[in-house]
Parts: sequence; C-alpha cells; structure tokens
Amino acid sequence: MTIQVNKWNYFELELKAWASGNPFLDVTLEATFTHQHRSVRVAGFYDGDGVYKIRFMPDIEGDWRYVTHSNLRALDNQSGHFECIPSLPGNHGPVRVVDRFHFAYADGTPYHPVGTTCYVWNLQGDELEEQTLRTLRQAPFNKMRMCVFPKRYSFNFNEPPCYPFEGELKQEWDPTNLYNLRAPAPKHNWDFTRFNPAYFRHLEKRILDLRELGIEADLILFHPYDFGAWGFDKMPPEVNDRYLRYLIARVSAFSNVWWSLANEYDLMLHLTLADWDHFFQLIQDADPYDHLRSIHNCHGFYDHGKPWVTHCSIQHHDLTLVPTWLQQYNKPVIVDECGYEGDIYMSWGDLSAQELVHRFWLGFAAGGYVGHGETYLNDEQRLWWSKGGTLSGDSPARIAFLRQIIEATPAPGLFPAPLRTFGAGNTGNWIMPGGLPHHRAGSYQGTEYYLIYYGTHQPRYQQFSLPPGTYRIDIIDAWNMTVERFMDAASGDVRVEFPRKQFLACRIERNK
Amino acid sequence: MTIQVNKWNYFELELKAWASGNPFLDVTLEATFTHQHRSVRVAGFYDGDGVYKIRFMPDIEGDWRYVTHSNLRALDNQSGHFECIPSLPGNHGPVRVVDRFHFAYADGTPYHPVGTTCYVWNLQGDELEEQTLRTLRQAPFNKMRMCVFPKRYSFNFNEPPCYPFEGELKQEWDPTNLYNLRAPAPKHNWDFTRFNPAYFRHLEKRILDLRELGIEADLILFHPYDFGAWGFDKMPPEVNDRYLRYLIARVSAFSNVWWSLANEYDLMLHLTLADWDHFFQLIQDADPYDHLRSIHNCHGFYDHGKPWVTHCSIQHHDLTLVPTWLQQYNKPVIVDECGYEGDIYMSWGDLSAQELVHRFWLGFAAGGYVGHGETYLNDEQRLWWSKGGTLSGDSPARIAFLRQIIEATPAPGLFPAPLRTFGAGNTGNWIMPGGLPHHRAGSYQGTEYYLIYYGTHQPRYQQFSLPPGTYRIDIIDAWNMTVERFMDAASGDVRVEFPRKQFLACRIERNK
Repeated sequence: MTIQVNKWNYFELELKAWASGNPFLDVTLEATFTHQHRSVRVAGFYDGDGVYKIRFMPDIEGDWRYVTHSNLRALDNQSGHFECIPSLPGNHGPVRVVDRFHFAYADGTPYHPVGTTCYVWNLQGDELEEQTLRTLRQAPFNKMRMCVFPKRYSFNFNEPPCYPFEGELKQEWDPTNLYNLRAPAPKHNWDFTRFNPAYFRHLEKRILDLRELGIEADLILFHPYDFGAWGFDKMPPEVNDRYLRYLIARVSAFSNVWWSLANEYDLMLHLTLADWDHFFQLIQDADPYDHLRSIHNCHGFYDHGKPWVTHCSIQHHDLTLVPTWLQQYNKPVIVDECGYEGDIYMSWGDLSAQELVHRFWLGFAAGGYVGHGETYLNDEQRLWWSKGGTLSGDSPARIAFLRQIIEATPAPGLFPAPLRTFGAGNTGNWIMPGGLPHHRAGSYQGTEYYLIYYGTHQPRYQQFSLPPGTYRIDIIDAWNMTVERFMDAASGDVRVEFPRKQFLACRIERNK
Repeated sequence: MTIQVNKWNYFELELKAWASGNPFLDVTLEATFTHQHRSVRVAGFYDGDGVYKIRFMPDIEGDWRYVTHSNLRALDNQSGHFECIPSLPGNHGPVRVVDRFHFAYADGTPYHPVGTTCYVWNLQGDELEEQTLRTLRQAPFNKMRMCVFPKRYSFNFNEPPCYPFEGELKQEWDPTNLYNLRAPAPKHNWDFTRFNPAYFRHLEKRILDLRELGIEADLILFHPYDFGAWGFDKMPPEVNDRYLRYLIARVSAFSNVWWSLANEYDLMLHLTLADWDHFFQLIQDADPYDHLRSIHNCHGFYDHGKPWVTHCSIQHHDLTLVPTWLQQYNKPVIVDECGYEGDIYMSWGDLSAQELVHRFWLGFAAGGYVGHGETYLNDEQRLWWSKGGTLSGDSPARIAFLRQIIEATPAPGLFPAPLRTFGAGNTGNWIMPGGLPHHRAGSYQGTEYYLIYYGTHQPRYQQFSLPPGTYRIDIIDAWNMTVERFMDAASGDVRVEFPRKQFLACRIERNK
C-alpha cells in the first residue's frame, strides 16, 4: 500500500546503519524528492543509536519519489515513493511574505501574526510545558518566539532537562556573571562534534505541538543569555554552522518553523555583522522550504534591507515608527518586542496592560504587527515571557479582540496611510490615502477599508471625505472591546462623532 | 519730593512736544539713566497726541539720574532723578537662566516655568480678558504665551478691537485662505510708518496684569496665523525692525517680559533663517535688560545653540527627548507645546488630560519644563488656548500638584540622569547619577534629591543604592495627586515597593 502524506505535513524516512567513527561528522546523507518535473534535495540527519532520518514536507499533491545519497553504502541509493494527499484542515502550509508588508500561508490564506514570547517554555519539563500548551489553546496567539538553546537570566536559573550536545558541565554557574556579556565560557566537556538527539527530539515535539494549535514557531537560533552558564553563545564557528545545518535537517520539514537568527543579536559581542550575514546565507542555502528569516535587535538594527531578510523583527518601544520602518525596508514589520505587560523591576517588563494594548494598536493600525509578552512576578519565578505556564494579565483578552479586528480586514492586510503635509487638509477633512494628520495611526486597503486609531487622543469628531460608494462606520473601543456602529451607509463628506474616551479607533468599510 | 520707584518696577518719564512730520519716524528720543558708575541707555517712544515716553526699570536701589537725548529740542537734555526703593513683595525681577538648565529671578529666587497658552487673550475685549485674569488667579500657571499681533485660525475669526497700525482693512477676509500660508496680503491702507499707540497701551495693560499675578509674559513677536487677514506676517523688512524697536521701547521696562520671536517660525515661508538671526540680534542690541529670548518651531528646530538664544522653546510631542535636547543645546528646555488637553479635530488639540499630565511629568522629571494649553470645543468657539476665558479640563489641578513638587526641589532645579548603559547595573540597583535604565524619566540635584517617574510602567519594586546619609522616600501618584511616605530614613541599598498603578513617581530626598 502506498504511504500517504498530507500536504505540508512531512514524510519521514528512517534508515539504520552502523558506521565506525562519528556519524555526525563522517556520514553524509541526502535525498532527492521528485514530483513530475520538480525535484527537491533534502539533508538527512543522524538521530542516534544507528538511526538516520530524512524528513520532507511535500507541497504538491500527487506522487513523490525519492532516492537517497550517502557516503555510507547502507544509506545510499535507497528509493521509494509516497502519495501526497490534501492537507489536513488547519494546515495551510508555511507562511510567506505577500504584498510587501504582509503574510499568507502557502495556500493563500492570510496570516496576520499575533505573537507571544515564552523563550524557553520547551525546556521546563513536561508538566509546565503541557500547562503552557493548555494556556495557548485559549490564548489569542498564532506565533511563539522560543529559543533552541537554554537561557540564563533573571528568573531563569534552572538547568534544562538535558543539553544539545553530549558531555556535561564541570562547573557551577557563577551568579556574579549575570549580565556580563564577556563572561568566559564555562568549564565543560561538551563534545561539540556530537549532538544530543534527545534534546532535539523534544524540541521537535514542542514545535509540532504548536503546529497542532496553529501557532508558528519563531525559532531563535542564537541568543546572548548564557553569561558563562553553558557557552552555547560562544561556540567555535564550525560548530555554529554544523548546528544550523543539523537543526535545519531536523525541523525544516515542519510547516510552522520560522528562523529567527537571534534575540538581541547585537549583544553577542563576539559575532560580527559578517557572521550574521553568513548565517543568513547558510540558512537560505540549506533550507529547502525557504522558511521566513529575520533577526531581532537590542539597540541597533541589523540592516533588514538585506535580501536574505524576509521581514523586520524589531525591538523598539515607539510604535509610531512602524510606518517609517515599512517605508525604509519595504518588508513586513513585526515589532516582536515593544515591552511586556508585567511588574518586574526592569523597564522592558513592567508595562501596564493598557500601555501594551495601546502599542499593539499603534503598530497594527499603522500596517505592522506587534508581539506580546508577560512578566508578572510570582513566587515560583515562573514568568510567561520565559517559562510559559499561565497568563494573568489584562492584555490577552484585548489582543484577542484586536485579532478579530485584524482578521476581518481585507486581504492581504493594511497599508500605512501616508502622513498628510501641513496645509493640505487642515480643514479637518481627509481620508486615506489622501493623507493622515500627525499623531494618528492609520491604514487602509484600497478604497475598501480604512482604520484610524486615536490612542490617547480624544477628538470629539473627525471629518472624512469618502471615495465613491457607501460605507459603514464603526467606533471601536480598544480597551473595553466594543464595536459600535456609527453609520450604516455613509457617503461623501461625513462627520464622525466620538465619545470623550481614550483608545478609540474608527473603522470605515465599503458596503458591497 | 523725590520720586520713588520700586526696584524692578518702572520709572516713566512723559514729555510733550509738537513736531511737524511723522514723530514715529522723524523724532529720535533716548535717555541715559545713571546710578553711581553705572549708566543704561534706553529708547523712548511716541505715544500719540504729542506725548513721548521713556520707561526705565531700575535694578539697583538708590539714586538714579537721567538725561534725555533727542533731535527735537523740546525733548532733548531733559534731566532729573528718582530714588529706587526695595521691590514690592512678589516682584523678584526679570527671569534669567541659571546653572545651564534652569531659571531664577534677578533676586535669586528660583523660577520654574509652568506655562500656559492663550495666544490672543489680550484681543478679546475687556469682559473676556478680565475673566481670563480671574481664571489665571486660581490656576497654576506662571508663564503665558501670547501674541502681539491678532490671530486668524480655526476658532479665531473675530477681528481685534483695534489694530497695531493706523489705517483700515479694505477687504473682507476670504475664508478659503485658511491655512494657506502663501495667501496674499489683504488689501488695506495700513500706514506702516504710524503705530497705533492705543493698541500697544492695551497690550501693556495686560502684560502688567500678568505681572501682578506673578505670570511671565512670553510675548510672541511674529506668527504665521494671518492667512491674508491683515498681512502682519508679511510686512516689509524695515517695518519688522521698526516694530521690534517700538515694542522694545514700550514694554522692555516690564520685568515679566520674555521675547518669543515666533510661534512656528518655520511656517513663515517668506522669512529666512538669516532674518531670524537678524531679529534675535536686533533684540539683543535694543533690549537694555536682556530679557529671555527664544523661538518656537512647527517642524524643524531653529538652532537653539546660537548664542542669542537663551533657552529652547520647543514644539514636540515626544517628551522622552528632553534629555537629548538638554545635552545638545546645553540650555534650559521648555516644551511650550507638546499637544493640548482638548477634543478638537486637530491632533495637536485633542489630548486626554491623562496624556497631557503624563507629558508634563516626563518633561519635568527629565530636567525640562512643559507648557499647557486647553482646546475643548464649546458653542462660543471660546477655546482657552487662544482666547482665554475659563478652564474646564482635568489637567490644571494635576499641574498645580506637579508645580508644588517642582517648587519643592532644591535650587536651581533638577538635572537629567544619564541613561545607564546595558550591563552596568541590570541587577536592578541604581541611583542617579550612576545611571538610569531606559524608559525611566529621572533627574537629580547633587546627592540631595532624586526623582524618577514611571509613567505607563508599573514595576512592583525598584532597588536603589543610596549615597551616604539617610533619605526619605515618597511615592507620588501624579494623576491622583497623592504623596505617600514609603520610608523616613532609608540608607544604603533599599527596595522601594509600588502599588500596581500607572503614573507613579518616586522621590528620594536626603535628610538634613
């Protein structure tokens, strides 16, 4: 009987072979998957215990044949085929950039990222990890920022259940190293030539759990939060490359994988911009599926204009800059970190819910996307932003409300309104794209849809000059999560009246 | 009997003479005032009806003698003397810049500007003007931005009671010119060689009314809000100069006068930067008292670093830039316009009270100063920001509370805390000037006083490493106007705990 694989799920070929030497280094394994005139070459990987695997995500229904290539005879020239059948409901394929500023799944379904952050939720043991998954099932998020490597930081002092390489630590972590980016690598006997497959299998399990929930896994490949704990931030260059290739071989067949080259790349003082260019190019070369690629900053941005960057992943508190970044980079903008709802002592983790929701709206209403995180102190030092668990903040409900608004916009999403120059319409009448006054976050999609967010501004009325057609106009209260119809069939010059309240938006949609 | 003049009040010499020709152009008049070894030369002015006046503000107690100089024999070589006696309570003399970033009256009393804006309150007729004065008597403001010339703008369609020049308009104003900065000058028969003394006498009356209330008059000498109504924005160059000299002769003896060269200078498209330099230099040359000089922008700043600018007068919405401007210009920063509390359709006039108060605190807690305005719509189109009248907003009470905080700081005022660089203290312990984390507005005065404002951040606790001594620590709620003592005699490393609330500040003062 022919093996059947759902489109955008993955086919896995498992081969067994015993080799002398180090299979991670010495054995080469690839396979060519062919459908009619199309063929894709995919790397395999060693999974320990004499087991080799090759994974492949088909993107066209029909018959696929494969043949392996290896320097080990037992793995070479193995061939077979499978049938790619329609995708399972809910799997729309990998996310791609569309229409400059937006995203869609491979099947064309719009995807509007509404992300959260639990950096090392996958290294907390099954009980907490499953609680995180239960929380996510009820939460509004469809993207998760998470690290491959373990994390040492405030509120992150636990060791991971196991390590990504064979070997062990020979040294207790010295807490005086916390935040010392130049802390020496710890004493260890990691065998950097031998991965620990169990570590990666667990990561895979959690990525697939997210896929099941419709959540993209924005995998952070490197990060600076080691501070002499394990030394994974300071591995030799050839190990970095081998690690990337191994990870790509293992997880790129999962449709929900994104590559985030780093969190706060600019804090990894021992890596240069040329190193980051190299990583991007390596991934671009090695990933058969061209998953999304980005890099996240602390202070200064990497040049998101470089061709291998698919979209901007930004840390910045000022969401009014979203239109500037869209224009500058001509790519989608995701402000993955604009501060988190919480109450810790650090200024990036103590935003009021009101402020975080405000920032979400500012970013979204300007044609960008914004990410969530939660950092409320608790006795267990179990902060969502890092370990997952449960959410206690007031922003997720508002973000869920916003996500409904986002998903009701016409495809592919909204484009930032140009700022109106002084004198062009200070009479109070405007409609995008004719221009938007300063201090309004506004966006539009053709003449179909307009959204203006007022934030801490509270005009009593606004006047719009609508294009031909009739429009329904809603007043949205971003904080109280209400949508009130102001007019069903407005046309021409219209004056919209607002209650005296903060955090209102005006939505104007053309009637069919 | 010897005439007595209070210090920082003014002596006025009135002379009568009949001259053929145009006294405004043809008659020169000055006087030299001498006290012991010191002499000050002061311009006189023609006040109409054959009356010439010379005003002089003495700044040293004792005997002053004067002698006049004129090309008109009846006005020349007139001499006399008066005795300067101690100043009246409440008159501390003109305001000066002290200690780079701050202000003090001439007698050394610290002056912390807490300004408001009623651009043409002085051109609304006595009834409304007196209501404005009654409002100001109860309000927290000690500086008023106001124009010399009348203003045409939205909500400003009334003619002034009279005009600064002889002559009359020959043309109704065309409302389609509103916001057209290139609108042609209207048809009129202003005799630009003849001022209307009554216009200026009324202005003087209102400046002195403000002086009586302890309010500095930040006189706006030019502005672009004419739009073809009167043409005072487009006078010939020699008229601009003559106007400045005439105004200086008339009002510079009033202790509470400041020179604000323009509102939104960069919208006066027919004037160049060289013109503004020239005006500054002319004023610097002509004003015997060296009153404060500044210039206010719409978009781009004039270079406040130029030597004739005494302090920065800024329009900008982002108060987190205050430390940058202080550092850049090395002068006091007054953000005279950061948006106004109100609900008009224009985005600079629809801030919530909460947002305006937040901006006040951000600016003040960073070592700068911020100005108020109110733009609530009402049926009479009587908006405080322009016409004065009454205040109905929620910010003035909070600004009054803030003013108490400001005035309780050690002289001369606060200095912005440098931003802490990453890694220098992310342990959560800091005290200025050791450094302040991002997204905190903070300032200090020596080791006596520290102020940190949290805005929309809500940390549960903050840790400080105090300098030697004991300190009292207060938690201030900027919106609810409460001050709660957290600790009376803290020392060394201290952890300050906060309620989960927005708009809190922490004040740390050394015990004597």
